[in-house]
Parts: sequence; structure tokens; C-alpha cells
Amino acid sequence: MTGPARLESPRRITLLTDFGTPDGYAAAVRGVIASHAPLAVIEDVSHDIAPGDVRAAAWALDRYWDRYPEGTVHLVVVDPGVGSARRGIAVRTNARFGVGPDNGVLTGMLREPSARVVHLDRPDHWLETVSPTFHGRDVFAPASARLAVGGALDDLGSSIHDPVLLSIAEPRRTARGIEGEVIHVDRFGNLVTNVSGSDVVAGAEVRINGRRVGPLRRTYADVACGETVALTGSSGLLEISVRDGSAARAIDAGTGASVEVVLP
Amino acid sequence: MTGPARLESPRRITLLTDFGTPDGYAAAVRGVIASHAPLAVIEDVSHDIAPGDVRAAAWALDRYWDRYPEGTVHLVVVDPGVGSARRGIAVRTNARFGVGPDNGVLTGMLREPSARVVHLDRPDHWLETVSPTFHGRDVFAPASARLAVGGALDDLGSSIHDPVLLSIAEPRRTARGIEGEVIHVDRFGNLVTNVSGSDVVAGAEVRINGRRVGPLRRTYADVACGETVALTGSSGLLEISVRDGSAARAIDAGTGASVEVVLP
Amino acid sequence: MTGPARLESPRRITLLTDFGTPDGYAAAVRGVIASHAPLAVIEDVSHDIAPGDVRAAAWALDRYWDRYPEGTVHLVVVDPGVGSARRGIAVRTNARFGVGPDNGVLTGMLREPSARVVHLDRPDHWLETVSPTFHGRDVFAPASARLAVGGALDDLGSSIHDPVLLSIAEPRRTARGIEGEVIHVDRFGNLVTNVSGSDVVAGAEVRINGRRVGPLRRTYADVACGETVALTGSSGLLEISVRDGSAARAIDAGTGASVEVVLP
Repeated sequence: MTGPARLESPRRITLLTDFGTPDGYAAAVRGVIASHAPLAVIEDVSHDIAPGDVRAAAWALDRYWDRYPEGTVHLVVVDPGVGSARRGIAVRTNARFGVGPDNGVLTGMLREPSARVVHLDRPDHWLETVSPTFHGRDVFAPASARLAVGGALDDLGSSIHDPVLLSIAEPRRTARGIEGEVIHVDRFGNLVTNVSGSDVVAGAEVRINGRRVGPLRRTYADVACGETVALTGSSGLLEISVRDGSAARAIDAGTGASVEVVLP
Repeated sequence: MTGPARLESPRRITLLTDFGTPDGYAAAVRGVIASHAPLAVIEDVSHDIAPGDVRAAAWALDRYWDRYPEGTVHLVVVDPGVGSARRGIAVRTNARFGVGPDNGVLTGMLREPSARVVHLDRPDHWLETVSPTFHGRDVFAPASARLAVGGALDDLGSSIHDPVLLSIAEPRRTARGIEGEVIHVDRFGNLVTNVSGSDVVAGAEVRINGRRVGPLRRTYADVACGETVALTGSSGLLEISVRDGSAARAIDAGTGASVEVVLP
Repeated sequence: MTGPARLESPRRITLLTDFGTPDGYAAAVRGVIASHAPLAVIEDVSHDIAPGDVRAAAWALDRYWDRYPEGTVHLVVVDPGVGSARRGIAVRTNARFGVGPDNGVLTGMLREPSARVVHLDRPDHWLETVSPTFHGRDVFAPASARLAVGGALDDLGSSIHDPVLLSIAEPRRTARGIEGEVIHVDRFGNLVTNVSGSDVVAGAEVRINGRRVGPLRRTYADVACGETVALTGSSGLLEISVRDGSAARAIDAGTGASVEVVLP
């Protein structure tokens, strides 16, 4: 990465962890990156993933990874198995990189057909001393920095073809329509399902936990305040929301709740 | 924006939303901005505004917008009416920009005499696909990026003169002194009022919910630990605080609580 | 700081406060820094230190301050005594800077043998108007910016030799082994002690509040899920953890809990 090139497009590293911020752990990761890649732009996505919630991290990553410019490095550290035999990995796909533990946090990038994956098995790229409980700082941060300064994926380790992928519940076609489930609850209490919004045809009725929500609508304001509404969310998936409220609280439903689309 | 110019002063975009961080929505906004304005500095103000609390966002914006260098773009997305007929707007005032929904979040910038406002009504500046529930990512992010790369306000849409402004409760002069109210409670439990600190003359007594707090003092340390104190806060407004504690909890008061300044 | 130099290594300013983010106070600090040092990289460490918890801030600072590149300025504002006679200070050690109130938040940097300290007693380096309750914005932000643009420590004030240092509980050697205590509880519920991990020899048994935890292990995965484990944490200190759980909750222990290492 030369000077002029940089003026066009600095390399970015985004951070997603369950470290919280007040303990200073996330800052230790940033400091290591800053020391190894002083010109890279470091961005916090979040450090507030629930401790150990690999699935929530993988969900979040899918919201943003391909919105960033080519060359961006996405570091994701939700790593309850740190220090065990689980591998550290880096992936390259669609001209972007992912770095993190091999426990499924990077599933969205790993599922891309063009994904190439390496096992971070070269200790000369780690910090000199590696804590068995903090690979984010001692292994993943220097690996991310190396990619951000233009290092090649293959520099970081040996190619592998069996990274851990999270399973995703698939909706089922039935005689009546589609049966799916809630796969994520967001900060607003929106219940995001695994049913594609485009599969909810006009006239179909949406039900959650057997309760009728009505047809697919466009946005929150299409119902009165406090009413439940089904719509296609910003990820293209069917969502159940309450206008100016929380569907999760109003319906008392969460991840795994059953969703049905009854065709007309 | 040319290379040399940038070395003098990179354009900044600040983000204030109610998205939280763990869902990845805020990162999606950042990714879109980074893709459209790779040299801009993107700064998170907060993503932890209470969901839908337009007034709290407008309050926060007034704490910082004119502290930033000229040219800064302040993006504010607290947008319960997203996808409805409410407009998206951009404002330019005092050589700084604001972008967000037309629901009052930008009130502080809009009230400046020099403010010029446009309706974001040019779809060619939006992302190709616009989700009816995520204008932050699909409309406001590219608009902010365009301003950050030097685009003119008028490029973004048609001029308007009737943006939505939040009403602000004004204190009343009475025979005894001034009657006002608490308009914000901050993280420390400080009760910020709508009374100017400079209107609390020497010898006047401050009361909250009828309870005597004493005269205006300079700082927390002017009373003993755990005691209530009235002072001029960092925004120039009369505040009621408890030293090393929370006035909101100690007095059990919040937004709207009545405040009286009894002149000597 | 000239243009070419910057391409090698931009100056960084990190922020650690108890301001929270939604009130806009932290952004006001950032805005002032951006106005005074437009080329500096500003990084948030955390604004979520518990209000007034000087000790927690000092703990966090020690996790990251020397991980950052030389030249970095670490601004720490947890300042319950703001506006009182307590001093504002800046410290330089190991080619990095610290700025904050003289209440112990900077203890880790101040204890370095090479530390030089000044009292921020030159009002011409402050903002024109200084709020007695917001030195973070009006005193410490411009001081940090001045260091980030290459200003010398001595520009900021008079040399002092008696900064406030937090006392740290030292473990005691006993006939049976070592007696220490828990000095920090992190987000994961890990109980960090003041006993060096390297002092826990093979065969020694760790006890917390009299309860047996077993010998020192390497990482969480060395015990079954939900079991308690003693290990050397990422700071080199003895920690008590619960695999995939919270030791603080499981053991109902916090800061000050007694820890014993019984030698074999």
C-alpha cells in the first residue's frame, strides 16, 4: 500500500467482540493493530455482543460485511473456546477479509462461493507472548493488521477447507403455506424470521405463535401506534414488529418462536 | 476534495442513532459511508439513544454540533416514522451540515438564523434499493457521504422552509422569581433545567418540586458528599445535582419536574 | 507534524471516561479535539466506566496504554472532583502521554520510572470559557490536542513531583503460601486477583473465599462447562473464572474477596 494509493482508499479494520469496553480489552486489541498498521482506519462495530453469543455475532456480521469497501478486514472475536484446540482462521471473499476463531462467527463470509480460508498456524505472525485467554489481542489483532497493510491471505497460514459453519434453520413449505421461525430479536424488539419477505405473497396472512398479525405491510406507519405489523425488514426477511413498541415484549416471543405464512 | 486539502482538514461525519451496536445496523450505515466517502473520518457519537426518543437526540446534538470543525456532517437517525410520509432533510448552518429525518432531531441546527434546508427528494442520490424501514443506511448515509466529499446542499434536494421543530418549554417570570422545569436528565442523574444559569442572581434560592436546594454554587465540591447542589452546568443552564450521587434518584425527579428560582 | 511524517504515523488520542455516550458530552470532547488537532486520530476506549469509579478507569488504562504506538495521547476523565482544588495533569512516559485529573486515574503511567508530570496550570491553553463542571471539554481536550500536534509536555504547565497515586493491595507471603484478593471483576465475571500467575507453582491449590478451585490451569477449556477454573489471565495475574459462565455470580464474590494460594 503506497502513499498515493492510500489517499484514494485507506484500509479499514472493523471490530466486533463480546469484550465490552470498560475493561480496556477492546482497546488493547486496537492498540496492537495501531502499532502494526498505523495507517489503517480502525472502526468499532460493537463490543456489546452478549458474552459467548457466537450466533448473535454471526448475525450482526451479515448486516455489514459487504457494505464496506473492498479491502476491508472484519475482525470478529466471540471466542468462548479461546486457548483450546479450536483453530483461528482468516477468510478472503469478494475482496474483503474476515479474521476470528473457527467457531462459526464468520459463517456469512465463509458461505460465499469465492471464500478462501487459512488456519492461523504461523506463530511468527503472532505477538511474541500469546495469552491462552486473549487471542483477540495476541493472534487475531496482528493477523488483521497484516492483512490491512497489504499482506496476502496465504502469508497467515495453511489453506483449509473445513471451517465450522453455523447451521441456519430453513423454512418449510407446507400445504397451507410456509412454516418458519424467529432467528433474531433486535434492539427494537423486532422479531426477524428466516422467511424471505418476497415469499409472502399478496393476500397471505402472517401468524406468530398462532396469533394473527395480518398481511405483509410496507412499514411501521401502516398500522396504528402499538399495533403489530408484518413487513419485509431491511435484510429482506419477514419481520414482526410493533409500531413504536417492542414485538418481543408485546407478543412475549423470542428466537425460535414459530412463524407461519398462510397462503390465500 | 484534493489530496493536499485533505492533509489540512479531513471531512468528518458524526453518527447519532438509536440503533444500538450489537445488531450491526450502525455498522451497515458506516460501511455505506465508507464506500461512498472513503477519505471521510466517521465518528460515533452514540447509538444508545432510547428507541424513538427524538427529543433526547436533539438534546445531545446541541451539546456537540458546533464544537466540531467547519465542514463536519452530523448524521442523526432517530426515526420512528421511517418509511411514512415524513421527509428526510439536510441542513447547512455555520458551515456545518445536519442530515436526518424531518421530525425535530435536527432542531438545534434548524433554529440557527443562517440555516438552509433541503428535502432529500432525489432518488438518484440514494442506494439503488431503499428499504422502507432503514433510511439511515439507504438514504441518509449516501446523502451524508455526498456532503463529506464536497457536494453542495442543493445537490441533495429541493429547498424547503418548514422543517419540523421541537417546541422547547420556556421558563416564566413570576412575581417571586422564575418558574421552569427539568428538560433533561443525564447519565449522572443531573437534572438539567430550562432556566439560564445567568438568571439565578446572587441570593436567589433554587427549589425543585418545592424542595429547597439553596443558592447557586460553582461546582459539586461546594457541598458535602451526598448533598444536593444547584449550579450552572456545562451548557449554561441551571442544574440540580447531588455530589457523588444522582439527583434524579435522590429527589425522585425527572423530565418535567418543576423548578423555581425565588429571588431575594 | 508535517504531511510526510503523518503518512508514517498519525498521532492518536484515546478517550476513556464515565460520560456515557447518549448525552453528547463525549462528542463535545471529540469535537474540541477535532477542532484543535484535525489530523489526529481520535479513538474511544470507553465512556461506560461507572460514574466516578476512578479505580476502574485506572485498571482499564493499564490494559492498553503501552499497547499503542509511541506518541499516543491517552485522555482519561473520571473526575468527581471537577472544579474543586484538585489539579489537572499531563504525564509523559515511554514516549506516550496521559492527560486527566490528578486523582489517580493515570496511576499506571505515573508509576513508570521515566514518568514526567506537569500541572495543567496555563489558562492560555484552555478554552476561552471553562465550565467548573466540564474540564474534560474545556481543559483536558485542548491539552490533549496540543500534545497530539507535537506540543511539548512542558508547554502545558509547571513540573510537579507529587501526583496522586492509587494504592494497590499487595499479596502477602504466609507460611502456607500466598494471601491476596480480588482487585477487578470484568465483563465476563472473571475475578482478577493481585497475585501474579507466575507465583502459583505447580501443585499449589487456589482458594477463593475459602472455597477450593484446584490447581492453576491453562485456559477455560481445561475444565467442563460451568466449572470453576484458576488460570493466569491476559494481564499475567491469577484469575478465577467459570467456563462459559460468570465466576462473580457463581461464587458470589467481588472486589476484595480473599484469595489464597496453598503451596504443595
